[in-house]
Formats: sequence, C-alpha cells, structure tokens
Amino acid sequence: MFETIEWKDDKVVMIDQTVLPEKEVYLTFDNYKDVADAITKLIIRGAPAIGVAAAMGIAIGALGISEIKRDEFEKQFKGICDYTNNARPTAVNLRWAVERMQKLYEENKHLSLGEIKALLKKEAIEMREEDIEICKTLGRHGAKAIPQNACILTHCNAGALATAGYGTALGVIRAAQEAGKNVEVYSDETRPFLQGARLTTWELMKDNIPVTMICDNMAGYFMKKGKIDVVVVGADRIAANGDTANKIGTYSVAVLAKENNVPFYVAAPTSTVDLRCPDGDGIPIEERHGDEVIKIGNHYIAPRDVKTAYPAFDVTPAKYITGIITEEGIAKGDYTKTLKKMVEKAQADKE
Amino acid sequence: MFETIEWKDDKVVMIDQTVLPEKEVYLTFDNYKDVADAITKLIIRGAPAIGVAAAMGIAIGALGISEIKRDEFEKQFKGICDYTNNARPTAVNLRWAVERMQKLYEENKHLSLGEIKALLKKEAIEMREEDIEICKTLGRHGAKAIPQNACILTHCNAGALATAGYGTALGVIRAAQEAGKNVEVYSDETRPFLQGARLTTWELMKDNIPVTMICDNMAGYFMKKGKIDVVVVGADRIAANGDTANKIGTYSVAVLAKENNVPFYVAAPTSTVDLRCPDGDGIPIEERHGDEVIKIGNHYIAPRDVKTAYPAFDVTPAKYITGIITEEGIAKGDYTKTLKKMVEKAQADKE
Repeated sequence: MFETIEWKDDKVVMIDQTVLPEKEVYLTFDNYKDVADAITKLIIRGAPAIGVAAAMGIAIGALGISEIKRDEFEKQFKGICDYTNNARPTAVNLRWAVERMQKLYEENKHLSLGEIKALLKKEAIEMREEDIEICKTLGRHGAKAIPQNACILTHCNAGALATAGYGTALGVIRAAQEAGKNVEVYSDETRPFLQGARLTTWELMKDNIPVTMICDNMAGYFMKKGKIDVVVVGADRIAANGDTANKIGTYSVAVLAKENNVPFYVAAPTSTVDLRCPDGDGIPIEERHGDEVIKIGNHYIAPRDVKTAYPAFDVTPAKYITGIITEEGIAKGDYTKTLKKMVEKAQADKE
Repeated sequence: MFETIEWKDDKVVMIDQTVLPEKEVYLTFDNYKDVADAITKLIIRGAPAIGVAAAMGIAIGALGISEIKRDEFEKQFKGICDYTNNARPTAVNLRWAVERMQKLYEENKHLSLGEIKALLKKEAIEMREEDIEICKTLGRHGAKAIPQNACILTHCNAGALATAGYGTALGVIRAAQEAGKNVEVYSDETRPFLQGARLTTWELMKDNIPVTMICDNMAGYFMKKGKIDVVVVGADRIAANGDTANKIGTYSVAVLAKENNVPFYVAAPTSTVDLRCPDGDGIPIEERHGDEVIKIGNHYIAPRDVKTAYPAFDVTPAKYITGIITEEGIAKGDYTKTLKKMVEKAQADKE
C-alpha cells in the first residue's frame, strides 16, 4: 500500500499528493518551515492529516532548537507553533494539533529541554497512531449507516490520504466493505485540485473497491436517477451547531441530496469539531490563487487573463446533514447537544 | 469579432470550438459527412448552431449529388439527411433542421433538381440569418427579466458560439447590457468539455462584459452568499411541459437556485421546443466517451484505467424554471399551454 505521513529518523516523510496518481513520490522534510509549507502547497491535505503533519512539524522544529536558554527556547518554540498554525486557515485540526503540542509544552515546562523535546516527538508520533485508530473506530460506527447494497457518493478525498491512514468518509466505506456489505463508490472529481479524480479513485482502486469517477456537475444527475443510496463526506471544521466546512462543492452535494431524499453523512474525528465556533458563519474560508483554477498541469483551460474565484471550502448548514459520524458514534438531531457530548466523551476517554 | 458558422463559396466555414480559446482556427468543409462529423466531435456545438450546421451540411450534400435520376437523387438525399440526423441525439434543433430541409424538398419535388438544390442552399443560408435575428429578439424579451444591476450565473455556453450569432442565454445578457443595465457574469467552467471556461469567458471578454470563471461546484457557494441575482442558461431540448434538457450540471444549478430563491431562466428559440415530447423522460440523453472526462488536453487527471461516466446532458424539471425565454416572449406558469402557444405563434409568424 502506501503511507500518507510517517516519522522516520527524526524526519517527516510524506507522499506528494500534488503529483498523484501519475507519480508516487515520497518527500522527506527535516525542518518545520518546509513541513508547514508542504501543508500550504497541498503536498499533504485533509484535515486530520494536516493535524498530524503540524504536530510532526512542531516536533521537528523543537528538536532543531539549539538554544539552551529557557526563555529563548520558549520564544523560538512559540515562533514554530505560530508559523505552523498559519499554514492554512479552514481545517481546525491544524489549530487543534498546534494547541495540543503547546499544552504539552506548558504542562512539562519544569522538565529539562531534552526531556521536553523527547515528549513533543513522542506526542507527534502518537497522534499519527491515534488518528489511524480513530478512523477505524469512526468507520465501524459509520458502517451501520450504509445499506447492505450501497452506491455511495463522496466528494473530495476523505480517505487514507487525508488522514494518517484508513480515512474518515472512505474509512466508513472500508469498514462497510469489511463488514460484508456490497459497496460501490461514485467519486466527484472535485475541481479544481481534483482530489476525487486523482486521490479517491487511486486509493479505492488499490483496495479493489469499485469506483466510478464523475464530474462534480453530474452528482445531481445520478441522485435524481436513483443511482446514489447515500452520501458520505469528510469535514475540515464542524461548528458547535453542526454546520460543516468541507471542500468547495460539498454544500451543493448536500442540497441535491436533500432534494432527492438521499441521506447525507459527514464523517470526521471529534478533533474536527470546533466548539468555540457557534455556527458556520464563524468558520474562515480559505481563498486560494486563481491560477489553480485555470491551469491543469501546464494546460490553460480558460483565457489566461480571465478573472477567477477560488473559495477552497464551503459551509453546509446542519439542516442538510443526516448525521455526523465520529469515533464516539453518529451524532444526530440537535447537534449543539449531541456533538458537544461526543467531544466531551472523547476528551474524557483520552484522559 | 468572429463568426461561428458561415456559408462561403458553397462550403461551410466554422470556428473550431475544440481548440478555443488557445487557438482561433477556422475550418472549411466541402461535404456533408465532414459537417456531420464536426457536430459529433463538438467542433461546432450548441443546439441552435447545430441546427444551422445540419441545414448547411444537407445543402452541401445535395449540391454534391451528381445523380440526375429522380428516385436515385431522392435516395441519396434521404441518406444525407439520415446521416446528419444521427450526428448527436439530444439537441432537437438538429432534427428540426433536418425535417425543415426535408419538408422543403417534399414541397418542391415538382421542380428541377437544379432548382431544388438552389432552394436547399438558400434555405440553409436563411436559417443562419434567421437564427441571429431570433436570438436578438429573444434577447430583448429576456433582458426584461434582468435587474438593473445584476450578477448573472450561466452554465455551459449558450452564446454566439452556440448559435449562428448573438446567443440565447448570452443574448439575454448582451441585450440587457445594450438596454443600459449593469451586468456581470459568473461562468461555470462546465466540465468536462469546459464550454464555460473556454468559450463563454472568451466571447464575453471580447464584448467587454465582466466575467468571472468559477468551477461548477462553486455555483452553490456564490448563490448562498447572495452574489448571484439571476441564472440564465440555454437548452438543447424543451419538452411540451417545460422540462428542459441542457448541458450536464444544469439540473444542479436549478436546484441550488430554487433553494436560494434565485430566479432561474431558460433561454432558447421555439425550435428547441419539442411538442412531440410530453415531458423530460422522453428526451434522449447522450452518453459520451469517458476519455473526454479523464483527459484534459493530453493530461490525465485520474488513473488511466478508472471507470467513468459521461452523461452529456441532464433534464431540469419544469418546476425549477422561473420562465422560458423565446423569441415570442417569456413563457411562465403552465408551460404545456404557454409554450405551445409560443411555438404556434412562431410558426404562424413565419408563414
């Protein structure tokens, strides 16, 4: 198979998601700035994977601080965390991971710098393993929402490539298959970065899960035809009320699902839930450069001087969401209550 | 500017829409098979433009028949019409144009073959001129539905390139601008053939109409934000009850428009209305080759052996359509009555 992100000899190794599926290239990073820049450039993407990358980047940054004066170390550590935190704005897992590393530092300030560095490294490695376990648990919960014979539509890539492994939305699909269900996937290509066309197809084909790639604008057609039994997508940030930021186009899929009476599920770890954010209006939406819209490879698909827009995410209001699948179960109904309970339970389980 | 299709020295000249906007190439055709193949290969596309191309192809085919035996001529003429009629299945304007040429032949069978050939040529040339006039009239009617300051979303290309000139949906936008309204256009890129990215942007930029190119999956986002005031699209076939076949993705735009209370208009000549087709279920949907989905230029955007689907059109049920703009006015309400009236009036106006 493949590994999305690994810690190897105090370096971070990632599969380069900008060149898949044509090339399978692994890149090695030995400093925190390059790790953060890899997040910005989408070499690694997907909210949970970004969280793990951020933690590993901070650990590498901390290991690299040669300063032995306590306050100078702290100043540099803070700089590393800030730089990492600014890599991308929408996925809350990034902030979550940075805050977790900062908290660990704060709680262990009394230790030697060597001990602190070792703890930060251990934490980052553990967060990767945790993420895989969480995805598997989440998958088992979500599989219950998948019919025995199901054609599942997904948007973007919320797979092994978007996490440390196994995936969230695709984790649900994998778990459904492992539970003996007959699953088939329709993958929206997900313009402009084509995560669906390039990544979801690639990883599902490796797992021999039947997948059909469609253009984003065909999803409604297949729902109306009755071809799609259920929609499962990932999330970059879920507000306290259930409003969910995910890859641009998710909102449209959700509206079409509602119109065609197709259940629409969001699958994400509780680390993607941002209880500090009351609703979707508070979620920052990343705007990326228009060149990513008008160029595919080196090929221009529009007049080179055309004006473009590239909101990288949209917010799906909670009312369109049938359920939110986390490692604690499937939240439904009044998300303000059900989600909060799950986040608190996940925190309690961990402590 | 540019000409979409012209009759020149008993040949047909078309701008090659497969290579726009990177290259502005005009192709010359001197036999009917090549004209029909140009329709199949999307060198010319857009329902009204296909109609004109079909008529010109048949005229060229008829001119090329050297046979002087009456029944042999008729046999060959029928073959030309059949070949042309099979170029693409969804746009009814193709059948409409073929039947109009056949009717002309039937009505003038008593004339000499030379006279018949001359009449067919004259008819094809007139159909082109008529189409431009119809678009202008349709545009003036439609402009009334456009607010004084309007951001208009359109899907695919229903412009000068999709007609003999001026356009249907883009004709409405042009007419609104000519009427002194402040218009701005958001153009869905329209995967997989990218008519919006390549053609709509290109022709609007030539006319200095402000245009922003977005991915298909962003339309919902901008509607939800309140950026879009009105949607106007073209049509390939409108059933008697108003159900409208248009480029794949139109249905999704219509559902999103309804959900966000954005008026959704279809603009098409009455020749696009198929009264023989009671509703959308009767409209044949063209399935094209999946290679057109996974390749952009020579660049593969997905694993080369991935399964794909490519329905080239979808049907938007009449209930999502605010009004259907034709050269006879804007049909609303019970389309079974209002559309029929317009088609009959258009036929009467012509006779």
